[in-house]
Amino acid sequence: MSSEKLNFQQMILRLLDYWQAQGCLIWQPYNVQVGAGTMNPATILRVLGPEPWNVAYIEPSIRPDDGRFGDNPNRMQQHYQLQVILKPDPGNPIELYLGSLEAIGINSREHDIRFVEDNWQSPALGAWGLGWEVWLDGQEITQYTYFQQAGGVDLDPVSVEITYGLDRIALALQGKNSVWEMDYGAGVAYGDALLQAEIEHCQYYFNVADVDALKMIYDTYEREALRCLEAGLVAPAHDYNLKCSQLFNVLDTRGAVGVTERAAYFGRMRRVAHKVSTAYIEQRQKLEYPFAENKLWKTKKSDQLSEADIRHSSLVTPEDGDPFVLEIGSEELPHADLTSALAQLRAAVPAMLDAARLSYTRLEIDGTPRRLTVLVDGLAARGEDVASVIKGPPADRAFDKDGKPTPAATGFARSRGLSVDDLSVVEEGGKRYVSAFVRTAGQPSTDALAGLLPDLIAGIKFEKSMRWNASNVSYSRPLRWLLALHGPAVVDFDYAGVRSGRVTYGLRPYGSPAYEVRHAADYRAAIDNAGIVLHTEARRKAIAAGAHALARSVGGVIPDDPALLDEVTNLVERPTPLRGSFEERFLALPPMALVAVMRKHQRYFPVYKGDKLLPHFIAVRNGDDEHLDIVRDGNEHVIRARFADAAFFYDKDIKRPLEEFVPELGKLTFQTELGSFLDKTRRLGQLVPVVAGMLGLDPAERATATRAAALSKADLATSMVVEMTALQGKMGGHYALRSGESPEVAAAIAGQYEAVSAGPAALALAVADRLDSLAGLFAAGLGPKGSNDPFALRRAALHLIENLTANEQHFDLRAGLDAAGQLLPVAWNEMIREDVLAFIGGRLEVVLRDAGHPASVVKAVLAEQTHDPYAASRAAAALAAAIRAADWETLLNAYARCVRITRPLKETYALRVDDLRLPEEQAAAAALAAAEASNDGTMETLIDSLRHMAPAITRLFDAVLIMDDEPAVRENRLALLQRLAGLARGVADLSVLEGF
Amino acid sequence: MSSEKLNFQQMILRLLDYWQAQGCLIWQPYNVQVGAGTMNPATILRVLGPEPWNVAYIEPSIRPDDGRFGDNPNRMQQHYQLQVILKPDPGNPIELYLGSLEAIGINSREHDIRFVEDNWQSPALGAWGLGWEVWLDGQEITQYTYFQQAGGVDLDPVSVEITYGLDRIALALQGKNSVWEMDYGAGVAYGDALLQAEIEHCQYYFNVADVDALKMIYDTYEREALRCLEAGLVAPAHDYNLKCSQLFNVLDTRGAVGVTERAAYFGRMRRVAHKVSTAYIEQRQKLEYPFAENKLWKTKKSDQLSEADIRHSSLVTPEDGDPFVLEIGSEELPHADLTSALAQLRAAVPAMLDAARLSYTRLEIDGTPRRLTVLVDGLAARGEDVASVIKGPPADRAFDKDGKPTPAATGFARSRGLSVDDLSVVEEGGKRYVSAFVRTAGQPSTDALAGLLPDLIAGIKFEKSMRWNASNVSYSRPLRWLLALHGPAVVDFDYAGVRSGRVTYGLRPYGSPAYEVRHAADYRAAIDNAGIVLHTEARRKAIAAGAHALARSVGGVIPDDPALLDEVTNLVERPTPLRGSFEERFLALPPMALVAVMRKHQRYFPVYKGDKLLPHFIAVRNGDDEHLDIVRDGNEHVIRARFADAAFFYDKDIKRPLEEFVPELGKLTFQTELGSFLDKTRRLGQLVPVVAGMLGLDPAERATATRAAALSKADLATSMVVEMTALQGKMGGHYALRSGESPEVAAAIAGQYEAVSAGPAALALAVADRLDSLAGLFAAGLGPKGSNDPFALRRAALHLIENLTANEQHFDLRAGLDAAGQLLPVAWNEMIREDVLAFIGGRLEVVLRDAGHPASVVKAVLAEQTHDPYAASRAAAALAAAIRAADWETLLNAYARCVRITRPLKETYALRVDDLRLPEEQAAAAALAAAEASNDGTMETLIDSLRHMAPAITRLFDAVLIMDDEPAVRENRLALLQRLAGLARGVADLSVLEGF
Repeated sequence: MSSEKLNFQQMILRLLDYWQAQGCLIWQPYNVQVGAGTMNPATILRVLGPEPWNVAYIEPSIRPDDGRFGDNPNRMQQHYQLQVILKPDPGNPIELYLGSLEAIGINSREHDIRFVEDNWQSPALGAWGLGWEVWLDGQEITQYTYFQQAGGVDLDPVSVEITYGLDRIALALQGKNSVWEMDYGAGVAYGDALLQAEIEHCQYYFNVADVDALKMIYDTYEREALRCLEAGLVAPAHDYNLKCSQLFNVLDTRGAVGVTERAAYFGRMRRVAHKVSTAYIEQRQKLEYPFAENKLWKTKKSDQLSEADIRHSSLVTPEDGDPFVLEIGSEELPHADLTSALAQLRAAVPAMLDAARLSYTRLEIDGTPRRLTVLVDGLAARGEDVASVIKGPPADRAFDKDGKPTPAATGFARSRGLSVDDLSVVEEGGKRYVSAFVRTAGQPSTDALAGLLPDLIAGIKFEKSMRWNASNVSYSRPLRWLLALHGPAVVDFDYAGVRSGRVTYGLRPYGSPAYEVRHAADYRAAIDNAGIVLHTEARRKAIAAGAHALARSVGGVIPDDPALLDEVTNLVERPTPLRGSFEERFLALPPMALVAVMRKHQRYFPVYKGDKLLPHFIAVRNGDDEHLDIVRDGNEHVIRARFADAAFFYDKDIKRPLEEFVPELGKLTFQTELGSFLDKTRRLGQLVPVVAGMLGLDPAERATATRAAALSKADLATSMVVEMTALQGKMGGHYALRSGESPEVAAAIAGQYEAVSAGPAALALAVADRLDSLAGLFAAGLGPKGSNDPFALRRAALHLIENLTANEQHFDLRAGLDAAGQLLPVAWNEMIREDVLAFIGGRLEVVLRDAGHPASVVKAVLAEQTHDPYAASRAAAALAAAIRAADWETLLNAYARCVRITRPLKETYALRVDDLRLPEEQAAAAALAAAEASNDGTMETLIDSLRHMAPAITRLFDAVLIMDDEPAVRENRLALLQRLAGLARGVADLSVLEGF
Repeated sequence: MSSEKLNFQQMILRLLDYWQAQGCLIWQPYNVQVGAGTMNPATILRVLGPEPWNVAYIEPSIRPDDGRFGDNPNRMQQHYQLQVILKPDPGNPIELYLGSLEAIGINSREHDIRFVEDNWQSPALGAWGLGWEVWLDGQEITQYTYFQQAGGVDLDPVSVEITYGLDRIALALQGKNSVWEMDYGAGVAYGDALLQAEIEHCQYYFNVADVDALKMIYDTYEREALRCLEAGLVAPAHDYNLKCSQLFNVLDTRGAVGVTERAAYFGRMRRVAHKVSTAYIEQRQKLEYPFAENKLWKTKKSDQLSEADIRHSSLVTPEDGDPFVLEIGSEELPHADLTSALAQLRAAVPAMLDAARLSYTRLEIDGTPRRLTVLVDGLAARGEDVASVIKGPPADRAFDKDGKPTPAATGFARSRGLSVDDLSVVEEGGKRYVSAFVRTAGQPSTDALAGLLPDLIAGIKFEKSMRWNASNVSYSRPLRWLLALHGPAVVDFDYAGVRSGRVTYGLRPYGSPAYEVRHAADYRAAIDNAGIVLHTEARRKAIAAGAHALARSVGGVIPDDPALLDEVTNLVERPTPLRGSFEERFLALPPMALVAVMRKHQRYFPVYKGDKLLPHFIAVRNGDDEHLDIVRDGNEHVIRARFADAAFFYDKDIKRPLEEFVPELGKLTFQTELGSFLDKTRRLGQLVPVVAGMLGLDPAERATATRAAALSKADLATSMVVEMTALQGKMGGHYALRSGESPEVAAAIAGQYEAVSAGPAALALAVADRLDSLAGLFAAGLGPKGSNDPFALRRAALHLIENLTANEQHFDLRAGLDAAGQLLPVAWNEMIREDVLAFIGGRLEVVLRDAGHPASVVKAVLAEQTHDPYAASRAAAALAAAIRAADWETLLNAYARCVRITRPLKETYALRVDDLRLPEEQAAAAALAAAEASNDGTMETLIDSLRHMAPAITRLFDAVLIMDDEPAVRENRLALLQRLAGLARGVADLSVLEGF
């Protein structure tokens, strides 16, 4: 089978036959352009509601922005999907899927088939699910998802969605370098059948489509969808929503949708999708769920081992001190989930064993993507007995005067299962009680664990968890088997529809063979025999050593990259590193792009010589080294395609200087009311000089900042950034330098999205950018509400704070926001400014609290200095230090007295220093004068002043009656105190401090 | 195989596998809603240009106006097609097609599989082809077409297009009563998978779609298509044209497109289609025809017998008097083509044999849909010799004085292959010439016929003919074999890529077995043995007798229906009539609808008892009576579905009185500038009373006509008429009666489209309707141009003429047109009126000439009476009679003298009778006075007057010198003659007659 080379159409028919044989309905592609088979009503509607549904169909899927004018070997605006929906989960969907690959000649043993976390969501469909990309030798060939929600509705049951990328599978199968060279069937090359239309569609999507006309049609179709819904028409409404989605995709590809406008479009599509979904659900209910009667789908059984297999040794019991093993087998856990689950188990297992009073000698917890293993050595066969004293009635009521037990005593004894003779009298707090000594026997380990293990597993929490079967239990990914043995005995329990047993499963490349484990002590050997490296650290070391050796052999090194190493370690059960190469010509691309592709997209280690990249990479296969050449070839093919993609964009971009991209920003909406990114660029052009002035930049720096502002957003219109958003700014800096801009301008552009800017020009640009976004979006009524922060304004505020603070820059946010606000195309006023300031203040409060400052200190400072984060942070530090000083109480008291007595006054009195006659008054006035003279608005100075003034103030209050009967005298004294109290103004509101 | 019941998806996969095995590319359904697989670019574009292309794919096809809200058993807005394109014709496409049916268990022997003429065209695609509907037991299951033109471009090579109606095939295969009950696959009923969406889409198309919005989108998409074409983008342009097509279909179903507006939409789509096609052709040329290299498609060979088979007896020669047979075997000829071809052969064969001087005793020419047969008894083995005399030089130049031959004589003799001794002298016209007697030997029959038969076949002309293979020869349908034998000898020739031989083929139901015919004398027996009834008359009689017997056995009769009988006779090679039945409930439908369905759609004979229909029909199977029950079941199923369809419409229509449909005419455009049919109805409401007055209707008749006018077009909005346009008017009459209108009103509505109206009210309505159309469309600049008459104005004019004439009604078209013109929403003037009148005059001329009147008579009458067709026709008849009378020359001469002498005069003189003194003058004046007194404008009276006046006029001219020297006398005489000449004014211009 595997030596046969199927052409494209044979492969398709073979797959349809396969899924038909699995009981699937064979459906047809949809007659509306869709981005994916998911959008076909056979998926997006049928997954709703309780009915079973099993379907398979081809879907030519249109993604305009994937178009490469036919220049890319496997990326096109149209690709063919095979979409499979299994509802409910049949219990063995991955095995069925691997069987389908087998049916077309893809043998797990000869390739590297990997399940790499990929959590799918469609904002437009209000849908999401957890699952994986399936990689074939580094190439994504399938999207595999457990569908959790659609149209904003929770799915129950959950559907298994398997979406094959048929073109890429065929590419691998036929061993061609490009889809265009593949054999489609009937003697026709794929390219001859499809290339010309591909090029034309790209041309249309990227360069020809009439943006205004399509926007108008979008609006019309949306109205039509809503009219259909009003008339109760689900299918036509859905069709129109699909048409809207395609129109949106075209507009997006045409560069006519800005980041913020995009959110609005998604919201509109999602709203219609939700209405369609709820209408569909209602309709199915009215139709009384026709598919529920389907006998073929009703009789589906999961692929679990039979009960007999599981139970055949249930009469065996463990010896005391036998090892215990729990293996939680699942489909592939994401990297972070694996790490987190192991950490949680390391805390939870000892607690659990202690609670069961099961003693043990050694505990080891480790795992791979498919299994979490708890190994306990020397586990007691039974929990320790425990003795306890149970207090009964007071002794004087339990026994009568003759010392005979009263009914109170006999009743108490009976309730505990004791005779009265077993009771003792115990003294407690001077009182005497009848008490019973009770000894609770420990449970046999298997019984105890059978009760506790379900809770142990249920207690593991994941960042995102999912349901998959009728148990509706949540876990990171479907839990498929449970091995639980104490010595030779199965710890028998059910969890998530799975029954524990003594079987473990081997490596996927070997077909996940079942291994029966007779005794817990045999588990390690079984796992070793299966070729699985259970220990994370062992896998990590093997990968690191292998990778370094492979790099060395081409004279290269691999920089330390613990994050990537950790991730790769958690992607495999048996790592085999391999070295692949790519064409030297790709080294002409910016290294940041190459590295981003290798690390982020492919999880490859890049290989360096000095600070130069070498044309190699290290990948890590899951499995042994058999057929490693096939795997290497596959991976090299993938990276070639990826780099070709990047080269396509890069070559396109560098045809023009960066400046020429600026006008194209006019087509990129920032936000409907705030205009395009070109409008934003223009605003920055005016705002940056103002901000630069406020930041004290010299003329050269100011010119640099202004030039950088003019080019700052240009890279958003470059293909490279459209494709790899993470490179924004950095790519702009690169292109700026290529276009002949100064290194300083390039650096300012490159650094604009970083939290902390390096250099004054970069700072001015970054601050101005954040001010424009905050002022603008608040003015447009789009400030964050609740946890909803679609425009990431929290991050913008945080960047402002961190940047100014780290650069030790004073900056008056009020003036900055007003300057930004004046430039907006929407109304700006003080109320809005105060809203923004309060919002930034909220972030600043968090920052200062995180820095360890007491809440009251932060509150005191922010009451006066929210507008200047750097000053506020310095003030908070100074105040926090001051309140830890020994004299603080004295200082605060002195100051507080001034405040407290003057606070009720409605009037501010004028101080007449010459009228102060008493020496205490004069001393205080002198201290005030000194403090006022030195006052620079900083907390440090204020504290110093307080320290100097405190004795004088104390003396003043001790010696002088402030509230003199003579009004003139009284008011002059109050005026003195008002001036003293006012010293903190603009620095802090000390009245909120403790002890005030 | 045939006992297996495939579910729908198995059937589909089986068919795809079959066509894959035949070398077809397996394509996917299109992701734009299309009405048919033809519109998928894999057909409509790939059929263009010289490249081969073989493809098969499923196409869910959307035809909004076929929607029945799921109420119909096999008619839906969405049905599934399997589309197959074979380019070029492989030589045996029908056999391949029948093989595919076999692959899914449909055996020709068990069913009645028929090829019924159906010439496909798509005005929107600018495409057409000739072919058939394939009927399975009366049910259309496939559209089979030889594609001749697409996008307005001639196709070379021609493509075979096979379009399966998968739902209907599955219905037959699964033996279900309704598609909704079919097994789709995976345990799911077709209805459960599709019914709900079907109902919703119908609801949308018929009741919800926003007409104005969709029209606007149509315009936008059309613009986008044209913009794509400007940018050279074929595929996106085609997509937009498809989208336009779907929008048009929705608008049409919504009732928003009038008959005339439809033509405009078609024109727009066709224009884009043409541009797309030419752009595609150009593009393929530039790409250097990639598919031309396809090895799989290049090696295709036709399925003809080997040369050895054909020639193995070529050395045999006929005996003198052996019979001759020519059988032209083809795919199924249409009824009319068969009739016409036989008639042509009956004329051409004797001429051909005479030309070859081949004597014969008897000639018989007959045929079936698959064969035209020429049988000649007693054919000579060789053409008769012929003797001829060839004139040479004059005798006196051929021989010198000594009687010796000159070089002129020897040269002449040599040139004829004779010696001088063979020359004779022949006298001709008094001159003597040397002459040669030449005897031309007749050719052997086989040689002669081999030369003549290709021309014989080529000489057969068809109403519509087609090309199908590389020979590019045209014929009614592909010519597939030629049997040509004289005695035992093959008459060996090639035609249309086919080589003649001795093999004939049997009946399709028996698998078209090949029969070798050893001797022409064996042919009849071979055909009889094959079960074929070659003689048309024998088939006709068998059908008539069988049908009558079957009707009689249920107490019914079949009315004479020669047209239907002729057609059915020509649809079969071996007729077997069968009787089917339908549910009595359908008899509640109007009989006209039932009969239309039976006769027109199904070619069934309806069965009557008295004037009532019985719930039976007679169908005629092609084949014997084996498995006749299956065939009957199939046919009954079909008629049930058809009647259910009609009942659906009828029930919907009768829910409301006819009057309520009138407002809906507002959505039905008559013509853009002339408004809707509601506007037309309103105009008729005003015009009919005027016309009625002109026609002299009494008040009651006038009221009837006016009421009929108000309702006249209402039935255009009823479902029944939307569906079966041929019932327009008649259905309106039926509904009017049901709605409580008077029988007279109903009759006027029912008769409005007939050429000749019965009754005055009907006449008034019919005349007014034609006047409005003629005046309106001419005023809108849409009068017929050349042979292009999209609005059938020729027929409108003809109806006017025939109606007024048959009803013996004088009518002044000038006044009528002006009355109609004044009511139009567009400008009207005398010039337009004269254009219309001239156009009607043109028709009238044809009518009068067809009545046998001489051209000059018609011309004479029309010069004066075009505006009154009835008067004109009477006048023409009278004049034609008059010119045949003995005295005509005298009468005409007398009158002509009056005209000739006065014609040059510029002035009209006043006659002073009293100044006429001569008796001849006075006699002539008296005759004039009598003629003027009796003049009633008719030709009869004019002729009478001429007859009376002629002697007086003759005498006047004989006795009196008109041109007297005295001016007063001269002018008075000329005045007399002017008055005499003027008598014909308004009746005829006699000066155009011969002899004038």
